[in-house]
Amino acid sequence: MPNFKITLEYDGSRYAGWQAQKSKFPTLQETIEKVLRRILREKVKLIGSGRTDAGVHALGQVANFKTNSKIPLEKLQRALNGLLPADISVTKIGEAAKDFHSRFSAKSKTYRYTILNRPYRSAFLRKGAYFYPYLLDLKLMQKEARVLLGKHDFKSFCASASSVKDTVRTIKRISVKHFIPNTEHRTLNLITVEIEADGFLYNMVRNIVGTLVEIGRGRFPEGSTKKVLRLKNRKLAGPTAPARGLALLKVKY
Amino acid sequence: MPNFKITLEYDGSRYAGWQAQKSKFPTLQETIEKVLRRILREKVKLIGSGRTDAGVHALGQVANFKTNSKIPLEKLQRALNGLLPADISVTKIGEAAKDFHSRFSAKSKTYRYTILNRPYRSAFLRKGAYFYPYLLDLKLMQKEARVLLGKHDFKSFCASASSVKDTVRTIKRISVKHFIPNTEHRTLNLITVEIEADGFLYNMVRNIVGTLVEIGRGRFPEGSTKKVLRLKNRKLAGPTAPARGLALLKVKY
Repeated sequence: MPNFKITLEYDGSRYAGWQAQKSKFPTLQETIEKVLRRILREKVKLIGSGRTDAGVHALGQVANFKTNSKIPLEKLQRALNGLLPADISVTKIGEAAKDFHSRFSAKSKTYRYTILNRPYRSAFLRKGAYFYPYLLDLKLMQKEARVLLGKHDFKSFCASASSVKDTVRTIKRISVKHFIPNTEHRTLNLITVEIEADGFLYNMVRNIVGTLVEIGRGRFPEGSTKKVLRLKNRKLAGPTAPARGLALLKVKY
Repeated sequence: MPNFKITLEYDGSRYAGWQAQKSKFPTLQETIEKVLRRILREKVKLIGSGRTDAGVHALGQVANFKTNSKIPLEKLQRALNGLLPADISVTKIGEAAKDFHSRFSAKSKTYRYTILNRPYRSAFLRKGAYFYPYLLDLKLMQKEARVLLGKHDFKSFCASASSVKDTVRTIKRISVKHFIPNTEHRTLNLITVEIEADGFLYNMVRNIVGTLVEIGRGRFPEGSTKKVLRLKNRKLAGPTAPARGLALLKVKY
């Protein structure tokens, strides 16, 4: 059966995540599958590159599905965007190799975490950023983040509820930046943490950000990242930063 | 009585505008006045620099009010942001001259209109941009916009329902730009129209944008702006572009 790759943008605020066991909120996967079924008139299994959590967003989530339908791709994209809720958008669609699997074929993923760091909140970024009103030492956060680069056992940054055995991952890129949108919105004062890795543990980005924020605020001393990493104990890392600041930016194959 | 100037950010989606006669939706003015009254324990009249319409946003709306309260400004700002709904934020507050009037003292205002110009919609910019999926000729729109620069009778771009007599205004700056956010969000493809003027007629920005879009799409021929301006007839201009793309950026004093 022909295999299709779709790239998705979504505002995760309203969803129980990509996939959920039991929840009163809809999941992204079931919402999109339902619309695909309606358009293609057959049951479709949508495989996502990974399960984004409840409230987490995506600018470049990738998923794939197989179908025998002969519908032209452009028409399929238009139909999907016509029928999907306004907080989900299909930005790209294309035929993929028969053995392409959005999860197993992925070489790396990039997440971005956005912190609104100013004394007063934003009327616009309510669901797209973590509002943190206290001064953060950006330089120190950058220095501490660099320690995480490379192959490490990230057990300290993995949710304790996770049952995964192998907690070794490779961070290929980590950047902590002052992000100034090129608009009149000069007062926004955003700090973004972008992490590209070959894989992520449960809550890994949010736990890393939570730790960097504690360091930036001065509640954890310099050198904490290294120490937390070495001791392999979730209790030593900072709190889990809120889901609303997190977005899956890109999946590389 | 001491006079205070506040700068506001708001997502106008949920409001009947800054001020409205009758509406089942709240207005921004009454929402903020209510909170001021609660904090200052006296009735306060809030004067806005202008009435943004229902659904129109602001990044830099300015308003002023008089009070005898001795509350420190920083504390007042914190209290306001603590009690106001999440879609309104006070970004600045300061004491102003006794005769400062947010509307009459204004030298110019700047509005920005945002168009999302790509074939598929955005999961995020649902309320902050006008989604226009057809190709627009940016260069031609820029050329046609320049015609509006300077002092003109903008009657053609004024809502016909308006009762205003003097329809002459001066546009100090008008720019039509490709706006590429400096993020991974490269696919956004936004077009922004920014207009600074000494004053605006009712629906003036939205009618100018509606006209420029018709020109950019090729439905109005080159030279239309000049012709529409000269003939002083609202019926010749393009349709009123939707409120959700419009934001009051700045008020200069």
